[in-house]
Amino acid sequence: MRYCRECGHPVEMVIPAGDNREREVCPQCHHIEYDNPRMITGTLPLYKGKILLCKRNIEPRLGFWTLPAGFMENQETSSQGALRETLEESGSVAVCKQLFSMISIPHINQVHIFYLAELQKDDFHATEESSEVALFALDEIPWDELAFSSVSKTLKFYLEDLKKGQLEFHEDTIKINQLSAQ
Amino acid sequence: MRYCRECGHPVEMVIPAGDNREREVCPQCHHIEYDNPRMITGTLPLYKGKILLCKRNIEPRLGFWTLPAGFMENQETSSQGALRETLEESGSVAVCKQLFSMISIPHINQVHIFYLAELQKDDFHATEESSEVALFALDEIPWDELAFSSVSKTLKFYLEDLKKGQLEFHEDTIKINQLSAQ
Repeated sequence: MRYCRECGHPVEMVIPAGDNREREVCPQCHHIEYDNPRMITGTLPLYKGKILLCKRNIEPRLGFWTLPAGFMENQETSSQGALRETLEESGSVAVCKQLFSMISIPHINQVHIFYLAELQKDDFHATEESSEVALFALDEIPWDELAFSSVSKTLKFYLEDLKKGQLEFHEDTIKINQLSAQ
Repeated sequence: MRYCRECGHPVEMVIPAGDNREREVCPQCHHIEYDNPRMITGTLPLYKGKILLCKRNIEPRLGFWTLPAGFMENQETSSQGALRETLEESGSVAVCKQLFSMISIPHINQVHIFYLAELQKDDFHATEESSEVALFALDEIPWDELAFSSVSKTLKFYLEDLKKGQLEFHEDTIKINQLSAQ
């Protein structure tokens, strides 16, 4: 049972007029509750050719390494969100260079985006969200200890692009049966 | 006054533990309600060098021309959503070629993305959402009758790129004081 955010009355699943899918609709105040995908925004932070990774100090995937990223918040742009998350998770100030990857994950209703970013200086530290923050050379990336498949994909795209000599934007999808192979 | 979606109890604005901004938190069942930006996904549909536009048959901006686009839905990828909206608004089947623009609009908590897409054939029609659907040559675009500034920006990027001879991905932000100049 769910309740209306506007008046507290129990809602019903109904296809509203002019719509084509069921929504939570309040029979008392007629509020329609829309639930839409959320964006995760983050960076692939670079410093002198090395990549900054954060060891997660929180669930999910506590103890695994990730690129700094998190839910985009209201009132910010996607790049502002990426830099805010980078600061919150790694203590480092970065500058976004270009959008590098956008990965839809439809079974969890998320879209993950990552910017290539440059650290302003060699200055980062463990935070509430990260037990460890470190720079990794390209041949030091802990592939078996990465937290999320969107992070693995983004790092692979980056290494492949470096080999090709051209950094491009990458779009991809993660399907449910790929999760076990992350 | 807002109410908890999980139990119907009035919520309070509180900064949850480990967070840094106020959320709607239920003092009864402790549910935290997160409100995040929504994605609008759509296409710039091309057919033999012309651009497909839809005249809006619904508010907001009823009677103005738009690129087909709408809220991304759960359980779909961003390109699937773009093609679904294109079909719903114009009756046409298209194929996404590349992500072309991503525009953050922080004061309304939205991110708009548009794909360059090719219509499969010269087949489109008015729909419940569009009173008219038509192909426009590049010098026929109704600039003064466009519905949204993200649409104007995307079309301008496209025309500029054609002049340069190279189609690139564009990221931009629309600020509140730009709206009157759309």
